[in-house]
Amino acid sequence: MTALLARATAFAPGSIGNVGPGFDVLGLAVGGAGDTVTVVRRQSRGVVVEIPGHPDLPTEPRQHASALAAMEVLARTGNDDIGLGIKVVKGLPLSGGQGGSAASSVAGAVAANALLGDPLGPEELLHAAVEAEAVVAGRHADNVGPSLLGGLVLVRSMQPLDVVRLAVPDDLAVVLAHPDQRLRTKDARRVLPRDVPLATAIHQMAQVAAMVHACASGDLDLLGRAIDDRIAEPARATLLPGFPEAKAAALNAGALGCSISGSGPTSFALVRDDPAVAARVVDAMREAYARAGVACIARLAPIDRTGARVLAREAA
Amino acid sequence: MTALLARATAFAPGSIGNVGPGFDVLGLAVGGAGDTVTVVRRQSRGVVVEIPGHPDLPTEPRQHASALAAMEVLARTGNDDIGLGIKVVKGLPLSGGQGGSAASSVAGAVAANALLGDPLGPEELLHAAVEAEAVVAGRHADNVGPSLLGGLVLVRSMQPLDVVRLAVPDDLAVVLAHPDQRLRTKDARRVLPRDVPLATAIHQMAQVAAMVHACASGDLDLLGRAIDDRIAEPARATLLPGFPEAKAAALNAGALGCSISGSGPTSFALVRDDPAVAARVVDAMREAYARAGVACIARLAPIDRTGARVLAREAA
Repeated sequence: MTALLARATAFAPGSIGNVGPGFDVLGLAVGGAGDTVTVVRRQSRGVVVEIPGHPDLPTEPRQHASALAAMEVLARTGNDDIGLGIKVVKGLPLSGGQGGSAASSVAGAVAANALLGDPLGPEELLHAAVEAEAVVAGRHADNVGPSLLGGLVLVRSMQPLDVVRLAVPDDLAVVLAHPDQRLRTKDARRVLPRDVPLATAIHQMAQVAAMVHACASGDLDLLGRAIDDRIAEPARATLLPGFPEAKAAALNAGALGCSISGSGPTSFALVRDDPAVAARVVDAMREAYARAGVACIARLAPIDRTGARVLAREAA
Repeated sequence: MTALLARATAFAPGSIGNVGPGFDVLGLAVGGAGDTVTVVRRQSRGVVVEIPGHPDLPTEPRQHASALAAMEVLARTGNDDIGLGIKVVKGLPLSGGQGGSAASSVAGAVAANALLGDPLGPEELLHAAVEAEAVVAGRHADNVGPSLLGGLVLVRSMQPLDVVRLAVPDDLAVVLAHPDQRLRTKDARRVLPRDVPLATAIHQMAQVAAMVHACASGDLDLLGRAIDDRIAEPARATLLPGFPEAKAAALNAGALGCSISGSGPTSFALVRDDPAVAARVVDAMREAYARAGVACIARLAPIDRTGARVLAREAA
């Protein structure tokens, strides 16, 4: 039996869900911000949660993605009797379309797994994080997958869970624009069509397939042409003042493609990893939102190709 | 100016349209059968068509895919004044779901282009063949693309036409089963839904994306799991007695995946390129159709990785 640690800390990056046309099936891990979870063994059973900087959040463990994921890891390894203290440092906003709840889930699962001596492999960690995420944000893997595995991830199936890590071109980067807007995931889901015309479904699957090939072959122009979402983006753009203008500005400034990150309000542009182009796209998106009366922080971000990682382990 | 030839002959392979979930967007070129078109210069203007073995077919050039494609090539190169005699040797059935009209279009375009000294590149030939195919069988490129380019082809967009050749694993082969049935493309199209549930569209695009990745990475098990069409196959299976049984038998015999080729009635199974497995799948499919009262010819076929080619050139 592996020795239990006294404490373990894990980091999980944020991610772009959907990545344009890949509604619910593609996700891309993004560097530069993420959630960090520290798990400490407690003498008494049960889980105690602390989220510095978020005094308004409830402290009931079953309402926290990190705690749920850590408890899922304990349950899957027969360690329900272990007590945990969990500290979550949110580097990602709570509701911004940057995969924050998924990152918290993943970091919680990875930290708890490290505390136990890493009994679970990536597939089981994925299951644990998906189950935790399902409680707080719905059953999806397009943020959990990339946050855990890094890079670009395809969710082939949720039932059974079948998640595939795809290739990502070396010279691809991302511009993230965070407009000062609120769009609740529930509202963003409500505007989605229940049915789509067959022609739209055909178009959409061709774009997702083209994205996969473009990434595998490094064809960034094809990748850009394929960022053409005709399902979620048209439905949600009306809820996101400034987004259509920011998208047009990004493309005009040299972005390969641009769409909404997850259910928004964050938007993203894919760019060649060229500082000059990226800077133009960052400025163009921020200024376009501003002209629409929406304050916005935009930043260039690398793709996180590593995914979640253990930052620290402390023996008992 | 390049010298005009007196005669040129081109071959184009058959193909599997849709390839399961890739409705209208994926096509796979299949070896072992195809259409061969010989184009001969005539002194007088106009086009004369001959299709040995098919005395019932009309001889009006504007009703023949090969002649239409050849005329399209003449028009695109400013050679409308050249008279052509066209002989089409049909190696593919006229209406079987094996991409016969696409192969005729492609072979006609390639032969006419060869006669003119190859002025057109693959992209223009694709356009010419798509226009010809559109007249006789509807505007699709999922058979024309692979018949021209070989291998597995993705149709990202029809307008503008954007066709991408994908990777195909070396150890992949195909079993084609030709049941003695008739299913008119028009009827096969009529049963398709006009709209699909969003969840179905999501599933379908995940499968097509997974197929592309599986082929790029050589993951044949993933490829098999991804052959799961929930749009066309369920609608058409009811029109194709014996197909559900043949599919079950193929999978049971070791096929990676199985679905309907194009709009049917031909069905296909993807198999590892292993003679023993392939022989079992061939037998299993034929016997399953037979038990359902449907005579069937089944054969193992390699993937045609070359696409259309010029077989002979004869100087003037």
